[in-house]
Amino acid sequence: MRSSSRGEVDPFIVMDVMEAARKAEEAGRHIIHMEVGQPGTPAPAGARAALADQMGDDAMGYTVALGLPALRARIARLYKDWYNVDLDPERVIVTSGSSGAFLLAFTALFDTGDKVGIGAPGYPSYRQILHALDITPVMIETAAENRLQPVPGDLPGDLAGLMVASPANPSGTMLGADQLRALIDACAENGTAFISDEIYHGIEYDKKAVSALEISDDVYVINSFSKYFSMTGWRVGWMVVPEDHVRKVERLAQNMFICAPHASQIAALHAMECDAELQANMDVYRTNRTLVMEGLPKAGFDRIAPPDGAFYVYADVSHLTNDSRAFAAEILDKAGVAVTPGLDFDAARGQGTLRFSYARASEDIREGLRRLAAFMASRAG
Amino acid sequence: MRSSSRGEVDPFIVMDVMEAARKAEEAGRHIIHMEVGQPGTPAPAGARAALADQMGDDAMGYTVALGLPALRARIARLYKDWYNVDLDPERVIVTSGSSGAFLLAFTALFDTGDKVGIGAPGYPSYRQILHALDITPVMIETAAENRLQPVPGDLPGDLAGLMVASPANPSGTMLGADQLRALIDACAENGTAFISDEIYHGIEYDKKAVSALEISDDVYVINSFSKYFSMTGWRVGWMVVPEDHVRKVERLAQNMFICAPHASQIAALHAMECDAELQANMDVYRTNRTLVMEGLPKAGFDRIAPPDGAFYVYADVSHLTNDSRAFAAEILDKAGVAVTPGLDFDAARGQGTLRFSYARASEDIREGLRRLAAFMASRAG
Repeated sequence: MRSSSRGEVDPFIVMDVMEAARKAEEAGRHIIHMEVGQPGTPAPAGARAALADQMGDDAMGYTVALGLPALRARIARLYKDWYNVDLDPERVIVTSGSSGAFLLAFTALFDTGDKVGIGAPGYPSYRQILHALDITPVMIETAAENRLQPVPGDLPGDLAGLMVASPANPSGTMLGADQLRALIDACAENGTAFISDEIYHGIEYDKKAVSALEISDDVYVINSFSKYFSMTGWRVGWMVVPEDHVRKVERLAQNMFICAPHASQIAALHAMECDAELQANMDVYRTNRTLVMEGLPKAGFDRIAPPDGAFYVYADVSHLTNDSRAFAAEILDKAGVAVTPGLDFDAARGQGTLRFSYARASEDIREGLRRLAAFMASRAG
Repeated sequence: MRSSSRGEVDPFIVMDVMEAARKAEEAGRHIIHMEVGQPGTPAPAGARAALADQMGDDAMGYTVALGLPALRARIARLYKDWYNVDLDPERVIVTSGSSGAFLLAFTALFDTGDKVGIGAPGYPSYRQILHALDITPVMIETAAENRLQPVPGDLPGDLAGLMVASPANPSGTMLGADQLRALIDACAENGTAFISDEIYHGIEYDKKAVSALEISDDVYVINSFSKYFSMTGWRVGWMVVPEDHVRKVERLAQNMFICAPHASQIAALHAMECDAELQANMDVYRTNRTLVMEGLPKAGFDRIAPPDGAFYVYADVSHLTNDSRAFAAEILDKAGVAVTPGLDFDAARGQGTLRFSYARASEDIREGLRRLAAFMASRAG
């Protein structure tokens, strides 16, 4: 059968690592998971209980395309609580995860052949989704001195759009208000649409992450219940768009998705009232961050920077390997620790980097660090 | 902010009808819903109970992109049970509803500017999704003598793809094995990819619907848990693709969706063991079909044909109006019955058609028919 060229996208390498880890477990080995970009915790208990209740009474058919009105209103309130921003709920669009939001944003904003800037290292699916939509991703190699975030001087003048993430995956670095404003202003001057991926907001350590909505209303902001709210598998997120884009995105959402999963929307609404449980998850991430910032250098992974947010450490291992994929495979095989090669995030420089996730239980992270230290010691010996 | 032209799609008119009906209800009126294309019933009780159980123990994070292995295997078995087809579970891809399957199929198969044939009348989102992907929908005006299904003689020679639906929405007509084979053969000769939307399979009356997989392995088949399994809001469906397309679609799914909602996949797996409850739904549809086939002509909507499947009657009302949208608004206003104007399904001829859905409880359908009869009598008077 015929086959498209737009559909030829790279695999998501972390998923191949997960599959290799799964096979090792199937063969009886015990694997520590420092590859996966998701919490080990379920959706908050209050969210699951509320859903279990409501499932008895409610047919839970399609919701309206923009999402349950109560959920949109509650999300708007989050902007007041977290950022002191007054947000009209009409601008909130509930999506099928941030993945659904990317598809809607890119389709609403860009035509075939448009160029969209993406920082490298960065979340790999940005560029793959753009490619699948026949939009041209332009990789922007960020500098270590800019903490692997783009700055206005990095931007080509002909971008139709710029996608940033703060806290970023894989680096965990954040854009402060000044840096965010500089990028938003530079984009506004060039007619470049600005999209802010804020999926790791809420998972931050020394200071609060800044939302692009604190700077401007003329931006697209994408977020999700996957990370802070610990609901990856539920596939529910949201997007805030300028007021005059709502109807356009609504029509696209009606046709491309009909609606986000109804059960997930109910669970998400109630997850927003489970702060005690979510803050307990944060305590674990804080502990884990301390563990990895101490343990990785001791093991020999000493070219790392403390992440501002998210639950990743991005390590420069270019002095140890020039093939991060083979190195990750060796670590899985010999140490029983699954880690992600940097190639997923940076095709050019990722041969010399690894991402360590510390989203799982602290005991797992401790054991993972012990294994990594033993592996590196035997390798040095 | 900038805005794309690919993203300029028509609204889904039925959703505007639903909104008008909701507003009428908010204002205190009682509305009979013959507009919505979804069952009034929830997911099967067994499915909800199994999910409620599993939610206690399982973190329910991301599944692998192609879906839970147990669900893929169970879907493959459905093809044995329903069609006596041996299907390799590896060819089954669990999707975020049939909507997700359309996005994956169109992206995997077609490049920008490719032409894809769609029968009119037909499901409106086919052409809107194609437009959003910068693929060119080619509307094929089907003939009444072909029961509003395309035939090989209707097809232009330069199609990259052909999308058919059997049972069709809005007509409810089916393609028999011979008609399906003629279309598949004609497509194979022209290098046209064949996509079969089988979302209404299981909801059929006098004879069993034929799957394109009974005719050929070189097709894409799309189905969903929304209709027969009564799970619209759960956004879970599936797609069967040729063996050599699996890996390509997997990579696209990893990047565009990550996975279908985990909770919905669990519910879907268990819904497949709830045949008694689903057959009770079918009894209601059968009763309703008899009611509307008797009641609509009595009310004055006599240009209709009995549907082979699905839960719609598509009525020619061109002798009553040349503005189906205004006519539907009048019926909502005066009779308190929500119906869908044919414009959603056929931009050219839909000014003279209406779609009546009979997916709700029989008592609602009886009341709807009484109201329609009274409205038409007063209109004639």
